[in-house]
Amino acid sequence: MSAGRTGRLIGVGVGPGDPELVTLKALRALGEADVVAHFAKAGHHSHARAIVAAHLRAGTEELPLHYPVTTEIPKHDPAYRDTIRAFYDAAAAAIAKHLDAGRTVAVLSEGDPLFYGSYMHLHARLGPRYAVEIVAGVTGMSGCWSAAGAPIAQGDDVFAVLPATLPAEELERWLADCDAAVVMKLGRHLPKVRRALEKTGRLARAVYVERGTMADAAMMRLAEKKDDDAPYFAVVLVPGWNAP
Amino acid sequence: MSAGRTGRLIGVGVGPGDPELVTLKALRALGEADVVAHFAKAGHHSHARAIVAAHLRAGTEELPLHYPVTTEIPKHDPAYRDTIRAFYDAAAAAIAKHLDAGRTVAVLSEGDPLFYGSYMHLHARLGPRYAVEIVAGVTGMSGCWSAAGAPIAQGDDVFAVLPATLPAEELERWLADCDAAVVMKLGRHLPKVRRALEKTGRLARAVYVERGTMADAAMMRLAEKKDDDAPYFAVVLVPGWNAP
Repeated sequence: MSAGRTGRLIGVGVGPGDPELVTLKALRALGEADVVAHFAKAGHHSHARAIVAAHLRAGTEELPLHYPVTTEIPKHDPAYRDTIRAFYDAAAAAIAKHLDAGRTVAVLSEGDPLFYGSYMHLHARLGPRYAVEIVAGVTGMSGCWSAAGAPIAQGDDVFAVLPATLPAEELERWLADCDAAVVMKLGRHLPKVRRALEKTGRLARAVYVERGTMADAAMMRLAEKKDDDAPYFAVVLVPGWNAP
Repeated sequence: MSAGRTGRLIGVGVGPGDPELVTLKALRALGEADVVAHFAKAGHHSHARAIVAAHLRAGTEELPLHYPVTTEIPKHDPAYRDTIRAFYDAAAAAIAKHLDAGRTVAVLSEGDPLFYGSYMHLHARLGPRYAVEIVAGVTGMSGCWSAAGAPIAQGDDVFAVLPATLPAEELERWLADCDAAVVMKLGRHLPKVRRALEKTGRLARAVYVERGTMADAAMMRLAEKKDDDAPYFAVVLVPGWNAP
């Protein structure tokens, strides 16, 4: 902490969930941070914090950032957008206060900070004003295909990350066109995703993964999954590469 | 090493180049390995080995695997395919010998082992016969967008990895259609990629990155890059997310 100088913001990727999939650079960032910030659902503990809990130094100040809403308001509702925006504004302001006081702030991010991460909302707000460092992390999808032992893409494959929220015809178009894919945010969209894979002849090789790098991971060929219930964070892997 | 029992094969992702972007799990795998195998161009040292050189135990047996050809024969030439296939067959046989003797073999892989990695060719050959573990790694592309501080994809973005080798019209179609992209293997294809970005109105936000997580990384807005020379491993980032 140095008077008269603003601190550094570090977006720290802590990987997909397995505490061993944390990088040395993430651990160094935790060691250097005066303040460690982490996102969580209201009333819940932060997953990202749990991943690195063993490495938090005693006496490090923590800044929990609790999402005001997650699924209570539909995403296209303007009230959702306003509430979330106000939340990120306030979170950025709380962090800016520490940075202005010369403190280094590490913001924990599951997976990789700049790949579908909440950290990006802080980065956009604070990046133009402060010194920022990003510590890349192992993504959730890498964790999933590694746990499944499923080679995903090779050589000149086109690889796509597709949200299951896409309309059916778009999902089908993408799945027909790309060589390899990960379909994420399955939840209630699984039946639609299954049909799209069937129509494009890709169901046989698709792998369903739940809690990819957790101790209680579940994975199976999607064709063998009996029901169409899936948690929000479950993914389907569509390997492109047919060895060797 | 235990007599009468075959050893374990570990595909170890060592990340994009920065020695600090190695995971604790990769280090544990190195500590457990009796043999550490790594790929390199003939006459060159392995990049993957260089990344973790500080962590190799004295006395660990090393198995360098030298590609017989890289760019000397065109890829679509059947001679290329045959030569490469024979190389991977021989590499797998050399590793199988160690596994049969009960030794644990770690195969180093830049980035993530199952994402465009050479390790996949060994995985395909040995996976059905031996106990295999995959240690996910930080991908080269995560390393690049983190070094550039470029938020790449958010929310319901469709993200695509596109090889620059694609025909111009396919590149244009993908770039018009997806929200975010990484174009890889630029090399002599950079002029074509630039035109495709221009035609799809995405040149202004595209970021050119060379040696993303090396100490001598170079990055700039592609629109500001004067010439169209690029090394084979340079990438173009096309961020999808327009904050906040």
